[in-house]
Amino acid sequence: MSLRLVSRRGLASPLLRWAARDSPMPFRSFTSSTKSSTQPNGRYVVAVGIAGAVALGAIAAAYSPSGRTHCDTPSNLPIDKRDAIHKHESGITPSSPMRLKMEYYIKEKQKEIVTALEKVDGKPFSIDAWERKSSGGGGISCVLQEGNVFEKAGVNISVVYGKLPRAAIVKMRADHKNLDPTVESLDFFAAGLSMVLHPKNPMAPTVHLNYRYFETMAEDGSTQAWWFGGGTDLTPSYLFNEDAIHFHNTLKEACEKHDKRYYPTFKKWCDEYFCVKHRGESRGIGGIFFDDLDDKEPEQLFSFVQDCLNSFLPSYIPIIERRKNMPYTPREKDWQQLRRGRYVEFNLVHDRGTAFGLNTPGARVESILMSLPLTAAWKYMHSPAPGSREERLLEVLRNPVDWV
Amino acid sequence: MSLRLVSRRGLASPLLRWAARDSPMPFRSFTSSTKSSTQPNGRYVVAVGIAGAVALGAIAAAYSPSGRTHCDTPSNLPIDKRDAIHKHESGITPSSPMRLKMEYYIKEKQKEIVTALEKVDGKPFSIDAWERKSSGGGGISCVLQEGNVFEKAGVNISVVYGKLPRAAIVKMRADHKNLDPTVESLDFFAAGLSMVLHPKNPMAPTVHLNYRYFETMAEDGSTQAWWFGGGTDLTPSYLFNEDAIHFHNTLKEACEKHDKRYYPTFKKWCDEYFCVKHRGESRGIGGIFFDDLDDKEPEQLFSFVQDCLNSFLPSYIPIIERRKNMPYTPREKDWQQLRRGRYVEFNLVHDRGTAFGLNTPGARVESILMSLPLTAAWKYMHSPAPGSREERLLEVLRNPVDWV
Repeated sequence: MSLRLVSRRGLASPLLRWAARDSPMPFRSFTSSTKSSTQPNGRYVVAVGIAGAVALGAIAAAYSPSGRTHCDTPSNLPIDKRDAIHKHESGITPSSPMRLKMEYYIKEKQKEIVTALEKVDGKPFSIDAWERKSSGGGGISCVLQEGNVFEKAGVNISVVYGKLPRAAIVKMRADHKNLDPTVESLDFFAAGLSMVLHPKNPMAPTVHLNYRYFETMAEDGSTQAWWFGGGTDLTPSYLFNEDAIHFHNTLKEACEKHDKRYYPTFKKWCDEYFCVKHRGESRGIGGIFFDDLDDKEPEQLFSFVQDCLNSFLPSYIPIIERRKNMPYTPREKDWQQLRRGRYVEFNLVHDRGTAFGLNTPGARVESILMSLPLTAAWKYMHSPAPGSREERLLEVLRNPVDWV
Repeated sequence: MSLRLVSRRGLASPLLRWAARDSPMPFRSFTSSTKSSTQPNGRYVVAVGIAGAVALGAIAAAYSPSGRTHCDTPSNLPIDKRDAIHKHESGITPSSPMRLKMEYYIKEKQKEIVTALEKVDGKPFSIDAWERKSSGGGGISCVLQEGNVFEKAGVNISVVYGKLPRAAIVKMRADHKNLDPTVESLDFFAAGLSMVLHPKNPMAPTVHLNYRYFETMAEDGSTQAWWFGGGTDLTPSYLFNEDAIHFHNTLKEACEKHDKRYYPTFKKWCDEYFCVKHRGESRGIGGIFFDDLDDKEPEQLFSFVQDCLNSFLPSYIPIIERRKNMPYTPREKDWQQLRRGRYVEFNLVHDRGTAFGLNTPGARVESILMSLPLTAAWKYMHSPAPGSREERLLEVLRNPVDWV
């Protein structure tokens, strides 16, 4: 398999080039010709670990080895520096470490999604590239606020090198037995793409996705434990069956290329995870959600995550195009604002990734809370009229539906 | 000391009478002539226990003894039933248990505050009285939404009888050594008044208060461990020094009637508690906050709590009257909405009472989340102009000021 070198620069340069929008987009899948044996183990347990890529920056801030210095020999260099040298000297190839391939992939995917959303909205995103001074990594936050179609849209990536303390290692061992519990700390890497779109029109649904790769490394930089996590889910204020069916169907097709069990398992997991427990209702009409996924070879799961991310634009663009200019009443806008309130409740009260990020000193709070809507409302004892569309939505949120 | 009987009915009846607004308001302080020796111990440690009266209903739902049945002899009756009989037969007298005096007091105070706020606003509150079927107690939620002056105003009381499981007892022992850690469960009682007012005008500050009494009881209904908690705090979007000084002065005067150390200690505690940690700023300009307070005789502390509650109307009414009709710009309204967003962040992410309530199955969520504003906003990377009033507020929130 031939693969041309796609990057010959270190981390900082591509970040800044992308921020300045002068980089090309030469991506193609690294895994298209990869063939590995499957090792399904049927275990998809909710993780103790990281629930959202939004929290990745936070983790790094917490566990960064502030005392690191440059050394003369590459083998003594921190892993982030060695990875930067690898990128500079060899570019990203099929034999590059997964962390570099994932980092490259999510950067390209971010550009592709932002470009497509700008076409839908007609206004440009603003782009903040940020780097972590204390240890390796950084991120790019692309946000469109008060656009023509989107009230608020955020597409973020973050790439983090850090150290996991022993307590975190012991917790993670519940799902990853090959983590060594005897060491004091472990180098880790995490990279993820997360996105939340809140459209203005109450007929157009909010959508969220988040895909991430996590690994721990031995001192020589070789991968120890690793896993993928992620998901995509839809949150309408007004339910259109055709939208729900199309959205779930697109995700199902992406899953079924890899494992027949994935869609039903991850659909159920999504309904369970995005539950606003104190309200007894789901945040939205679901999609897929998974964590700690290591039941196949890394290349196979990387390919699965790519198919999930590739399914996003086909799953959502037809819906937003259908709904973005629909007529609506002030009363319908009010209902959307109340649903936005529930979105805030889930994200601030129940979302593990958000909680982890916010409780970590030094986290980039603006990137974590980019997921919150521009505006939200709470009315005491609000209850939709019997037989109304609003009441029908609540019924579906209380009793998740199998859409496909 | 003579004291006329103020209630000759059981719990249910006064709740419903107040809900129907036909009850008289004969309250006067029970403790005005009480003299007890002080036993200050100088300990004002943040509690493991209950942080907000809003969560009291939630606690009861969690720990209610669902298997209880009526018995023939009063000594075998659950304590809530015995208290109801006491109220019916003897009314509330100075020798009544503290729980009945506190319950009566907060009910009367709720009426007084609601009446005063209706006079400020010109629109009436809506009143929901609710009772807990599973075990004893109930509550009254008074809410004014989209008033003339208040965007949203809630004044709640809740009165709860329940059972604390061993795990909760063990935790509470950190602050209350006389709790018996060998029993499987303990009867408890909690009663509190909580209030949040969000005015429309961005020049008028949000205000919050919450005072509560908690006790555990032996099987014969006698009090075992007990304590008071509470506080009052102010959250302006635009800071007026004269308002801050008046507010703190009024609270300081209430504190100093009882203990010179109270105001400085509880002011500091308030600044620490109402900190939006992930933003590195206080929710507002503070006030007072305390918990687990049992450093004097119960009657003395009841009298202190009454003085705190009595100080509310004098502390806030002059401020709201000054600010409610001030002119403001759309830009100033936008800033208020961003501050409302921070209020939501504190309440949903950091407030212990809210978290406890929301995580308790069967809690009355509408009463707990009455504290959220009608509307709130989040803008990515918003930053006030240098030298602006908005920037000055942030400076004060980042570095709390001693106002008196």
